[in-house]
Amino acid sequence: MFEITNPLKSVSRRQPRARAAREADNPQSPLLRLPEGEPLALDSGASLAPLQIAYQTYGTLNAARSNAILICHALTGDQHVANSHPVTGKKGWWATMVGPGKPIDTERYFVIATNVLGGCMGTTGPASTNPATGHPYGLDFPVVTIRDMVRVQVLLLNHLNIDQLLCVTGGSMGGMQVLQWAASYPERVFSAMPIATAPRHSSQNIAFHEVGRQAIMADPNWRGGRYLDEGVSPTKGLAVARMAAHITYLSEKALQDKFGRNLQNRDAHTFSFDADFQVENYLRYQGSSFVDRFDANSYLYVTRACDYFDLAADYGGSLALAFKNTPTRFCVISFTSDWLYPTSASRAIVHALNAGGASVSFVEIASDKGHDAFLLEEPDFHATTRGFLSAVADARGVRQAAVAVPA
Amino acid sequence: MFEITNPLKSVSRRQPRARAAREADNPQSPLLRLPEGEPLALDSGASLAPLQIAYQTYGTLNAARSNAILICHALTGDQHVANSHPVTGKKGWWATMVGPGKPIDTERYFVIATNVLGGCMGTTGPASTNPATGHPYGLDFPVVTIRDMVRVQVLLLNHLNIDQLLCVTGGSMGGMQVLQWAASYPERVFSAMPIATAPRHSSQNIAFHEVGRQAIMADPNWRGGRYLDEGVSPTKGLAVARMAAHITYLSEKALQDKFGRNLQNRDAHTFSFDADFQVENYLRYQGSSFVDRFDANSYLYVTRACDYFDLAADYGGSLALAFKNTPTRFCVISFTSDWLYPTSASRAIVHALNAGGASVSFVEIASDKGHDAFLLEEPDFHATTRGFLSAVADARGVRQAAVAVPA
Repeated sequence: MFEITNPLKSVSRRQPRARAAREADNPQSPLLRLPEGEPLALDSGASLAPLQIAYQTYGTLNAARSNAILICHALTGDQHVANSHPVTGKKGWWATMVGPGKPIDTERYFVIATNVLGGCMGTTGPASTNPATGHPYGLDFPVVTIRDMVRVQVLLLNHLNIDQLLCVTGGSMGGMQVLQWAASYPERVFSAMPIATAPRHSSQNIAFHEVGRQAIMADPNWRGGRYLDEGVSPTKGLAVARMAAHITYLSEKALQDKFGRNLQNRDAHTFSFDADFQVENYLRYQGSSFVDRFDANSYLYVTRACDYFDLAADYGGSLALAFKNTPTRFCVISFTSDWLYPTSASRAIVHALNAGGASVSFVEIASDKGHDAFLLEEPDFHATTRGFLSAVADARGVRQAAVAVPA
Repeated sequence: MFEITNPLKSVSRRQPRARAAREADNPQSPLLRLPEGEPLALDSGASLAPLQIAYQTYGTLNAARSNAILICHALTGDQHVANSHPVTGKKGWWATMVGPGKPIDTERYFVIATNVLGGCMGTTGPASTNPATGHPYGLDFPVVTIRDMVRVQVLLLNHLNIDQLLCVTGGSMGGMQVLQWAASYPERVFSAMPIATAPRHSSQNIAFHEVGRQAIMADPNWRGGRYLDEGVSPTKGLAVARMAAHITYLSEKALQDKFGRNLQNRDAHTFSFDADFQVENYLRYQGSSFVDRFDANSYLYVTRACDYFDLAADYGGSLALAFKNTPTRFCVISFTSDWLYPTSASRAIVHALNAGGASVSFVEIASDKGHDAFLLEEPDFHATTRGFLSAVADARGVRQAAVAVPA
């Protein structure tokens, strides 16, 4: 039924953007390929085939297949949670969290992370080659939802013969996938840990995403989404999109503490439009480095998936119904200074879970780092995740020292 | 010394963008022209000549010349406070505040508003014709500061023979000018009412402005700032800049209350990148209507002026020293839901004034409308401004019924 490959090759010395372009079809990741004859039905009514799923695993699945943790990534994240990134060469985006002895301890747990549907790091997305045309999909790729992303992850778990996850976790858009998992497949989720997320995208969330999309589509090199075919790249528009988004990831205090009004390698204002201030220089760097690793059309698709996310809407407007009689144990985590997905959004999740009589812990972490706190070494956050995972692992009888079996 | 003209012509039926382009040199406003031989020295070290100042007045200056109120406009505002706008035809941006019987009562007060230096509605700015070349300045226009803007206003007051303003007021960037006035010319300011503003631009403020500037400069039609000469316009970049900025003018709650996740003239998601959501449609409209009336280079200059604003820096880092022994009576106003220039920024102003022993009232208005609240009909806000102005007018002996004299 499935073909699987495992091409973890070394990072080439070619330019990052060329490496990034290659990842869409031929990623440096284990790959699950689903044949043309088994199309995936999407929320939009479209179906997609063939489909490939790029993923990474860390640690060892135990004999009872009971120690698997699925990590769902955020908007521009990917499956490279704890290994060096094949395009940038940087360490994984959650390397502080995942590894031997880390809160998500790969000595005890078997960790799985996939690239999301619509992404650009090996799971099928707009940068992938459309087999019907031999060209990249571009805007011919169907608009996908958070639920579609989860459907793809289910296919991988089926392939790995994992009936029930010990935990599904992730922050931001990853947390939306966690909520969708718990709502759609409660029997397959022993525990769920949604972090710095929301049960639906707010008007302000949609607004910021729309600015990013308009910045991309305003770039004449976007070419109606056909830039890959035409050998150009809407790098300026994508960089502006990233800059705007990046501000929302940090708290006002984090920006002030980190940069304040400090000048960038100069003693006085230049009275020009140079990057006089460190914060300008930082944002420009964030924008220009992002375009080396991320596909502009993918950015359109993943932001759209977030905007469409409104879990309650699938349950007659009642978030509580989404979790009715859920057997899953929840740990909901928010950060005090996160204004993108503020604590009030997490509280709405907790209220819905309480209404359904679920087992739920809610922890608001005091942090002045803003939304990005979930990516950083925040001791209270790490202690919370470590403690919750250890408790659910104990409850499920997962032994401290995992017994190695072939995955 | 001065040449003054008063060409309040009727709005033509030409396209708005053509009308906007004309306003830079030949505005539909009274105009003060300073000759070439009297250059204005700027903070940058550059000097500017010739210089013209476009302004509007409302009401009548009394015989004692004691009832003048200067209104300073925000980033993309202008001198058209209470008259119909010559480009858009819309009513003035503070028509709710200024007029007969309004909080800034033109039956009692003589109201003056200028277009700021660097603006595009008639005061010299980057869209003005550079007499040295016969072409628009573009980026040859010197970078100006909030203090430079105030220097230009001083020239107009000198011309109008107004030694001391009854009050100087304004919101946002207008509030920065108010603070600069009080610090630089305390003897000329009987009272000052800075609204929804800050004594310096924060790192986050700079960051959002930098996104806007990068969006403009990323537009290939910006042409290094020479678009007017080349007959094009960076409308897409400017629209994206406006969209990003506009989000910061509204509170999260205001967006949620106004738009929520409501769909735009449709019953279901289209699974496309159309403006499915009302908030997307609204932002696109804000962006595209803005480019009809505002010059992209002006946007670069006025945002830069704000970023450079740090009043304390001119006084050895002490904001209190900026207001030491000030005779001015202050009313500082903030709004609870303003996250662009939050109450904490106004509080810093108040603390500095208190440290200097100034006469100061501080009013935080409960509003969920965000930064834009200062432009809206907020009863508590209007009551506060009306009350403060009436009190300072009484203290200065301004009669209820103004006696008409020629200005």
